[in-house]
Amino acid sequence: MTKFFGIGVGPGDSDLMTVKATKAIKELDILYTPIARKGMKSTALRIATPFVDDSLEIKERKFPMTKDADERQKSWQLVADEVIADVKSGKNVGMLTLGDPSVYSTFSYIQKLVESQIEIEIVAGISSFSQIAATLKQPLMLDEESLTVIPATKPTEVISKFIDDNQNIVIMKISAKFDEIFDLLNQKSLLNNATIISNASMENENIIQVSELTKQAEIPYFSTMIIKK
Amino acid sequence: MTKFFGIGVGPGDSDLMTVKATKAIKELDILYTPIARKGMKSTALRIATPFVDDSLEIKERKFPMTKDADERQKSWQLVADEVIADVKSGKNVGMLTLGDPSVYSTFSYIQKLVESQIEIEIVAGISSFSQIAATLKQPLMLDEESLTVIPATKPTEVISKFIDDNQNIVIMKISAKFDEIFDLLNQKSLLNNATIISNASMENENIIQVSELTKQAEIPYFSTMIIKK
Repeated sequence: MTKFFGIGVGPGDSDLMTVKATKAIKELDILYTPIARKGMKSTALRIATPFVDDSLEIKERKFPMTKDADERQKSWQLVADEVIADVKSGKNVGMLTLGDPSVYSTFSYIQKLVESQIEIEIVAGISSFSQIAATLKQPLMLDEESLTVIPATKPTEVISKFIDDNQNIVIMKISAKFDEIFDLLNQKSLLNNATIISNASMENENIIQVSELTKQAEIPYFSTMIIKK
Repeated sequence: MTKFFGIGVGPGDSDLMTVKATKAIKELDILYTPIARKGMKSTALRIATPFVDDSLEIKERKFPMTKDADERQKSWQLVADEVIADVKSGKNVGMLTLGDPSVYSTFSYIQKLVESQIEIEIVAGISSFSQIAATLKQPLMLDEESLTVIPATKPTEVISKFIDDNQNIVIMKISAKFDEIFDLLNQKSLLNNATIISNASMENENIIQVSELTKQAEIPYFSTMIIKK
């Protein structure tokens, strides 16, 4: 029976894909890759390229980065309908996701729209926060420590509480609200405890101590903050 | 220059190792693997076996599972001294860890003891909680949700607070204190929201809904609970 595979390609370095991900890609008849706009390259596809045969049918599909929930829902439904039709016609179909398909991924939305009709298989990937710990050579957590992962889009007072309540905090998509979080860390005297990694494991990887920045700093899109108290 | 590699082998299925982990193993002269007692097999080594050449020198070393901090420290120091000597003599040395070397791993302790003297490289691995989400085909987190990972060894009142404050909670090493956490979930009417996975991605993988258990249930050692509210 054919399936729909959600395949995590990890944070950027192609070698951080699992062996299972590379084998799953070989089984596919059709590979969906998300792009933000027509003509843009898919980062996930670039990462997977060493393991993609030339003969594999690639379907680039638009996943607009918009706050308009209706527009997003409409684009997901279009892709979901097409995926269902492909799998039902006897094709093995895959979709690539950056990082781990279980961590804030668009794949999860498509999954919800198709899982009542076709079989799903998820291939876990290295998440950006896992790679950040490896890059910094610092454990994410030890002993009885907790780790909390939150998106920067949460209300600032909620982020403040999470910082107070945890030893280790990862804030995803930090570029969305860096100035407010900078102020928060400054108030808490935690600027020296915070590090930002941009483009972890990619060629343009960059590690920045937050204490060396100002609140006006421009932070690249693929950036994550880790706070260790 | 030679290095000490901390290599994550993922949760159990050898194919869940990254391509980078398999390549790192090929570069090694000596591979350290942790065992709890003499004569026991190393789970991490069993996972990596398909990628280990017969010619690789394996050093099984005891990491006693004891609450005696002095005894643990002593066994770590012995291994650390040996690793430093091996790397300084011009060998590439690796140590395998189950899951991700950055997540509650013994490697982190050895790293602390050696990092001032030799170069370290960490190869991230799929953590057990990442694989659990893949196995259950449920996202770890979506949209503005938080994820908190805590060990069951934390005080029960602290665990209670984390459950209240988060949408998604992973409790590691759940077998250590299942009865108390069962009571906690019962009080909060969350038994139906909790799932335990034992031996994720291994041959004896088992998924159990907590609502089908009693507080006296025996939970296998490699078990993790996920609570989704």
